[in-house]
Amino acid sequence: MKGYGKVTPEVVAELRAAIGERNVLYEDKEALENYAYDTAGRIFAHDPEAVVKPEKTEHVSAVMRVASKRRIPVTPRAAGSGIAGAAIPIFGGVVLSIEKMNHILEIDPVNRVAVVEPGVVTNDLCKAVQEKGFLYAGYPMSTETSFIGGNVGTNAGGGKVVRYGSTRRHVLGLEVVLPSGVVIQLGGKFRKDTWGYSLLQLMVGSEGTLGIVTKVIVNLEPLPGRTVNLLAAYPDLDSMVASVAEVVKSGTKMISCEFLDRFSVKVTTDYLGTKLPYQDKAEAYLLIQIEGETDEELEKAYEKVGALCIEKGAFEVFVAESRIDSAMVWNVRQNLAEGLRVYDPYCSLSGDLVVPLSEIPQMMKVIEEVSEKWKIKVANLGHIADGNLHPLAVKPDDVPPDKWGALAEDFYGELIGEAVKLGGVGSGEHGVGFLKLPTLLATKTPEETAIHRAIKLAFDPQEILNPGKLVHQGACAAAP
Amino acid sequence: MKGYGKVTPEVVAELRAAIGERNVLYEDKEALENYAYDTAGRIFAHDPEAVVKPEKTEHVSAVMRVASKRRIPVTPRAAGSGIAGAAIPIFGGVVLSIEKMNHILEIDPVNRVAVVEPGVVTNDLCKAVQEKGFLYAGYPMSTETSFIGGNVGTNAGGGKVVRYGSTRRHVLGLEVVLPSGVVIQLGGKFRKDTWGYSLLQLMVGSEGTLGIVTKVIVNLEPLPGRTVNLLAAYPDLDSMVASVAEVVKSGTKMISCEFLDRFSVKVTTDYLGTKLPYQDKAEAYLLIQIEGETDEELEKAYEKVGALCIEKGAFEVFVAESRIDSAMVWNVRQNLAEGLRVYDPYCSLSGDLVVPLSEIPQMMKVIEEVSEKWKIKVANLGHIADGNLHPLAVKPDDVPPDKWGALAEDFYGELIGEAVKLGGVGSGEHGVGFLKLPTLLATKTPEETAIHRAIKLAFDPQEILNPGKLVHQGACAAAP
Repeated sequence: MKGYGKVTPEVVAELRAAIGERNVLYEDKEALENYAYDTAGRIFAHDPEAVVKPEKTEHVSAVMRVASKRRIPVTPRAAGSGIAGAAIPIFGGVVLSIEKMNHILEIDPVNRVAVVEPGVVTNDLCKAVQEKGFLYAGYPMSTETSFIGGNVGTNAGGGKVVRYGSTRRHVLGLEVVLPSGVVIQLGGKFRKDTWGYSLLQLMVGSEGTLGIVTKVIVNLEPLPGRTVNLLAAYPDLDSMVASVAEVVKSGTKMISCEFLDRFSVKVTTDYLGTKLPYQDKAEAYLLIQIEGETDEELEKAYEKVGALCIEKGAFEVFVAESRIDSAMVWNVRQNLAEGLRVYDPYCSLSGDLVVPLSEIPQMMKVIEEVSEKWKIKVANLGHIADGNLHPLAVKPDDVPPDKWGALAEDFYGELIGEAVKLGGVGSGEHGVGFLKLPTLLATKTPEETAIHRAIKLAFDPQEILNPGKLVHQGACAAAP
Repeated sequence: MKGYGKVTPEVVAELRAAIGERNVLYEDKEALENYAYDTAGRIFAHDPEAVVKPEKTEHVSAVMRVASKRRIPVTPRAAGSGIAGAAIPIFGGVVLSIEKMNHILEIDPVNRVAVVEPGVVTNDLCKAVQEKGFLYAGYPMSTETSFIGGNVGTNAGGGKVVRYGSTRRHVLGLEVVLPSGVVIQLGGKFRKDTWGYSLLQLMVGSEGTLGIVTKVIVNLEPLPGRTVNLLAAYPDLDSMVASVAEVVKSGTKMISCEFLDRFSVKVTTDYLGTKLPYQDKAEAYLLIQIEGETDEELEKAYEKVGALCIEKGAFEVFVAESRIDSAMVWNVRQNLAEGLRVYDPYCSLSGDLVVPLSEIPQMMKVIEEVSEKWKIKVANLGHIADGNLHPLAVKPDDVPPDKWGALAEDFYGELIGEAVKLGGVGSGEHGVGFLKLPTLLATKTPEETAIHRAIKLAFDPQEILNPGKLVHQGACAAAP
């Protein structure tokens, strides 16, 4: 196959004719630079040759027709809040930003769905459906910045998966533009579908390598009952971990169960200028949100959970009933990434692994041992009741920034290898992008990788869509 | 590509050497005949050349190595309770029955999963996990006969989807033997996974065309609280349909919501020798199961639902609180297929369509109109709160049995076409098999069909696994 085509002035003219002058950035170095990196950090930046901002499905189609004619790489981009590098145009070409496709098209109470464009900010959707008495149950930690389209691309998880599942469970329908520009419709306003292979499910989590999502039909849940947030402070990791298994078993209606270690809390509270209770002596915290239909049920539930945590060794369990107290504890969780980046601008945020819940104690030990061996300090945290941990690596002082990205990923690679040995996988919610591609290939069998490749080619025979990501790129594999 | 190979005595010897004399049926016409058809009916029978009954994964692997060497078709078979013909060996070759792989390998309370072989009867799993305090939430109407492996193959639905989702949501991990005999592991004892394309999700609902499932890790839910069953009798379809939307909206915790029309109830109660309340004048029934944490909550819920049904026009709502009363009403629903088959041995059970809930009133009208036009009597029923209807066609007296199968499918084809126009699909839970393949092809775009084909070839380049099903078979397409 011929190599990738370049974005020439002629190509730009064609793009502008197709989707409007204002929707194509070219030769404006400063503007283009904003689309060169994602939240993985500027150290991984690759400049696009052009950026397009389609306003509707037909625009996306038109761009793909231009690109497929000349085999020009197209990298779809949502909010850029990803941390695996999936939105970075590592082969140059065109970045296709969906930022202008940001409309909530419909909230349909009878079918309990919303129909949205992919550029809608997750939290905007949450707020809009809440006004109509519904819950959109997706809740990535980046909910205030991430787009629904990006959530679909990574099968985003977050703080409510233990109760509601990942984004996969919330997606009922998709409109998708194939690399050829052809538009297909998958699923719809219904919840049962065994009408052919589930291309819908295949699209979710495919990180923009198979098609470009231009419309999403999401499931809406009833609003939860009353909720309360518990913050439990522990003298050590072991007692915290022991509590999780007990709380999960207790049958309490848990919406969230987040773990934060001492260091995570320190950098974030320093950044926010706050303090959590027991911060001087606590090695770990659990932040648990539970639900009850009535005040009485809720009180019974949080007393049960609180007692279990104390029994397993918590210093104390702080019950945040008021809106202010609840916001205070969640604020720490939500600002962790920013706090870490202020502490260390090079701090890698891409650590993300999953093990069976029963293997969490062992995985905790492994993280400690491997960190010590590599002399890398980590902030350890995660959606612990899901077995999903985020050990986030701080750059050691003696490692130069230009060596750090690869080193951090090698470090995560070792941790992921251990997670796989424990029956887990290398990403619960961040995805693979290009940062984790070597580790993906190292942990999958050749047979599975071959099927991945063939699926990629089934959708994208020219490999123009987000090349270099998620699946090995054959002849084009070497990252430039 | 060369044509399919035949099962010669030499092949049989090789199979027997690999998996044991007792596990290979050959030349025993009577024994083979049992594997020639499924619940779609004997009119669709095709004899296999041999039947193998592997006892473990290695046996399945060995069979596939023998078959792939000679391009012999292999049709995987679970309980044979399917009604789309997916288990019928329409190209001859080998039927691979998983009936001997019927062990519950593990019930793991910490990770809240069970690990089972695919030949476990659905209800056996339900009972085993219930003893440990868990719910397996799959509940196809064939729960007492169907196997878990078959449930995975069709992404089975059933009576509790409105609350718990289809089989897809319950499957966390799969062991799969590829057509080459290579074994791969997908997913695991965890609930978050964005580590490469979701081959796990692709396997669910693929009807044994991509690989053979040899182990399943299923999610376990907490047992529900107290439940009660309501039976509402209606003077007409409209008032029944109007109730459904109201009940769904009411926020009640509904586990099931089943609709039965007058004719369905008549044939089944005749078969069972029972009667439902108001049977002389009711045109439609709703069977609703609701849940409450406490007796008080439950009572409030069923009073609310009952009042809504009455308000919309129900004659009366019968509350089945006792085990005996509940069993009586569910018995009618569960014995429907058998009742219909006693009424008409040729009654087609394969009608299965899905529309958005908001389109149910229109779909009801269409079913009536199309049935009248075709002069075909239907029993209409279904999982109505999911938008999933089963119009089941009775053979008209003047149609000869050998013409009936194709005619019934043409009839369903027209109904499905209408469902698709209303934003729905042609199967919610039965799958495509070969009976619905022409309709699948007629309702999917060429682009989607091409991707289906390419995915099939990615897993099964020789097309030996369940040929003639779900995806078009290229050169081999013509059903023999």
